[in-house]
Amino acid sequence: MALYVQKYGGTSVGSVERIEAVADKVKSFRAQGHDIVVVVSAMSGETNRLIALAKDIQEHPDSREMDVLISTGEQVTIALLAMALKKRGIDARSYTGGQVRILTDNAHSKARIQDIETQRIRTDLDAGRVVIVAGFQGVDADGNITTLGRGGSDTTGVALAAALKADECQIYTDVDGVYTTDPRVVASACRLEKITFEEMLEMASLGSKVLQIRSVEFAGKYKVPLRVLSSFKDGPGTLITTEDEDTVEKPIISGIAFNRDEAKLTVKGVPDLPGVASRILGPISRQNIEVDMIVQNVAADKTTDFTFTVHRNDYDKAYQILQQIVAELGAREYVGNKEIAKVSIVGVGMRSHAGVASKMFDTLAAENINILMISTSEIKVSVVIAEKYMELAVRALHAAFNLDKADTVCE
Amino acid sequence: MALYVQKYGGTSVGSVERIEAVADKVKSFRAQGHDIVVVVSAMSGETNRLIALAKDIQEHPDSREMDVLISTGEQVTIALLAMALKKRGIDARSYTGGQVRILTDNAHSKARIQDIETQRIRTDLDAGRVVIVAGFQGVDADGNITTLGRGGSDTTGVALAAALKADECQIYTDVDGVYTTDPRVVASACRLEKITFEEMLEMASLGSKVLQIRSVEFAGKYKVPLRVLSSFKDGPGTLITTEDEDTVEKPIISGIAFNRDEAKLTVKGVPDLPGVASRILGPISRQNIEVDMIVQNVAADKTTDFTFTVHRNDYDKAYQILQQIVAELGAREYVGNKEIAKVSIVGVGMRSHAGVASKMFDTLAAENINILMISTSEIKVSVVIAEKYMELAVRALHAAFNLDKADTVCE
Repeated sequence: MALYVQKYGGTSVGSVERIEAVADKVKSFRAQGHDIVVVVSAMSGETNRLIALAKDIQEHPDSREMDVLISTGEQVTIALLAMALKKRGIDARSYTGGQVRILTDNAHSKARIQDIETQRIRTDLDAGRVVIVAGFQGVDADGNITTLGRGGSDTTGVALAAALKADECQIYTDVDGVYTTDPRVVASACRLEKITFEEMLEMASLGSKVLQIRSVEFAGKYKVPLRVLSSFKDGPGTLITTEDEDTVEKPIISGIAFNRDEAKLTVKGVPDLPGVASRILGPISRQNIEVDMIVQNVAADKTTDFTFTVHRNDYDKAYQILQQIVAELGAREYVGNKEIAKVSIVGVGMRSHAGVASKMFDTLAAENINILMISTSEIKVSVVIAEKYMELAVRALHAAFNLDKADTVCE
Repeated sequence: MALYVQKYGGTSVGSVERIEAVADKVKSFRAQGHDIVVVVSAMSGETNRLIALAKDIQEHPDSREMDVLISTGEQVTIALLAMALKKRGIDARSYTGGQVRILTDNAHSKARIQDIETQRIRTDLDAGRVVIVAGFQGVDADGNITTLGRGGSDTTGVALAAALKADECQIYTDVDGVYTTDPRVVASACRLEKITFEEMLEMASLGSKVLQIRSVEFAGKYKVPLRVLSSFKDGPGTLITTEDEDTVEKPIISGIAFNRDEAKLTVKGVPDLPGVASRILGPISRQNIEVDMIVQNVAADKTTDFTFTVHRNDYDKAYQILQQIVAELGAREYVGNKEIAKVSIVGVGMRSHAGVASKMFDTLAAENINILMISTSEIKVSVVIAEKYMELAVRALHAAFNLDKADTVCE
């Protein structure tokens, strides 16, 4: 007898048939005696349809009205799911974000949840009802409709689970869990039974797009056990939780993340003076370009080479900005490279194990892969390499860190 | 400088282009210095699309959830119209029924408005904003979303106009006013400049489908001047208002209404005893069949013939019920006729003019049209005739009561 908050994304509720399948799933949980709060997204395609209507009127529509518009997507889904449950003899009630109410700040289109009133949900649960809540939306203190931004339904689920002190927040998606790496790159990739919030954050931010980063942060902060499962096939999924006593048993590395969304820019021969970094990165960030990795080395001639990465979409803009500032800086030259990939090993186990980084470098060297940049954190080592070696690097590291067969979860 | 509540129906906001046209119209009213509250329906077709989704799940979906579902239709329109106004530099804010709030009872799908909070709207109007309200919807005392039933957007408009003490409630539709009769039947039909609430009620209930009856009742009750106009072409439309001093100038008859939606049933040779009417109509109404006209005459042999009309769709069911009760009553026989039409002359002027009914009967007699039933009220005389004579009767009456050229409004 547990309380589960279950979140079903757009693909999981993408048609009336899929909504009926979700209703079957919820019914089976009810049959086991569990209390269920369901959070749903808009039916897949619906949000884009609504955005297209707005863009027909104006390229940048008013953000308050945009939230009024697109919040209807989830409202349609909650009603249809409630109907499907009623049809199955399961008492259910749907609520919009404003009805719950989920109080947010007034930052339309990217609002943050401030508070959730749980009394109404508690009353319904006590009366034996399934409660269905529209994801992704809330209201500000003045009652204006707000949205949490794309993927915000995950955040709604986690926030509700935290507010209700649910036993678990279950995120149903189109993958059956979190893998040691992308199975499309490494066929022997394993589903992880457990992963820590920190590891998941590193995996997610590095391109494993299973969960929204904000929802993982939220879950970690409020210690809400989070489980990623498939809404299409049965299975235990992956539990994302705090580090616990069985960490000693854990493999050193949990997974290999990678992405090829970045590009690298280097300013060479910069006079090695204080303030150089900010003189280079200031103009970049003022153009709203996010910088990921930053490396600076002092060369023999008292000049320095300064390298950083940006999203590949921002590369051309960043390159132009450099053109302007390189002369001011008295730097020798600047170069850029879009054909790079970032590969990272992630694992809380590396905290207590020396030599993890050097094992990574050795593995890449054995494959003749040159490392262009290195960046490390307590539970992650990232390298930038030429894009063409990415798959090779991921496979080699996956094998080197014994992920290929590390885990009984592998089938 | 007036305050207008303007209601635009589904056809008037049926596409982004149409919504932009409404925004232009609202802008021109603002330019004249008027305060504007706009009530909109769902884009035409949208409500049916949503209903179809629900019916895919269940033939008779839960009514609470149905209201959650279909109320999204108007919510989409209010947001798009607000964007279109903002694009034109007009400050605007949209509100759902729940946000206003429009408080209703909890009769889902046919809720009645109990109260409207106007403070938020007043604040926006004072700040120079156009306020856009979703028609057709409200919330009950527990915050559940309710809808007023089809056509309820007219009611929202009138109720808002009453609550705000607006100078006029303007209903924009696809006709440019109320006519003396249907121009498709009588080419010389005239648009009326003015009509009383009572006349409009008789016209509407008799099949002139310009306005929802409930909204006219509401407007009459709260004395809200109501104007019907075209959203597609300019013009003064028809003002529906209370009877005033210029009624003396009014023609005796305002219009000719007609419909062919009814069927007639007669029980012949019923023993003329007390309680006969209820023994016949009781079983009919218990099957939720509405009875419109009722006529009873005593025949020479101390028996009576009892005739009534029902909606044509209910005819077969009513006929079967009669079969069962005719024997119990000891009646001689029963007959039915579906090929009938009801034609009515409507006008407050007839209150003070004798001979209106007989002029109607004379006119029909002159055309050799046999009258099957007669029913009268203070401002209306209705007759049932054979359906095949309907157009002939309407044209003859239109001419006889000088409607063909009665009015300078005619073009």
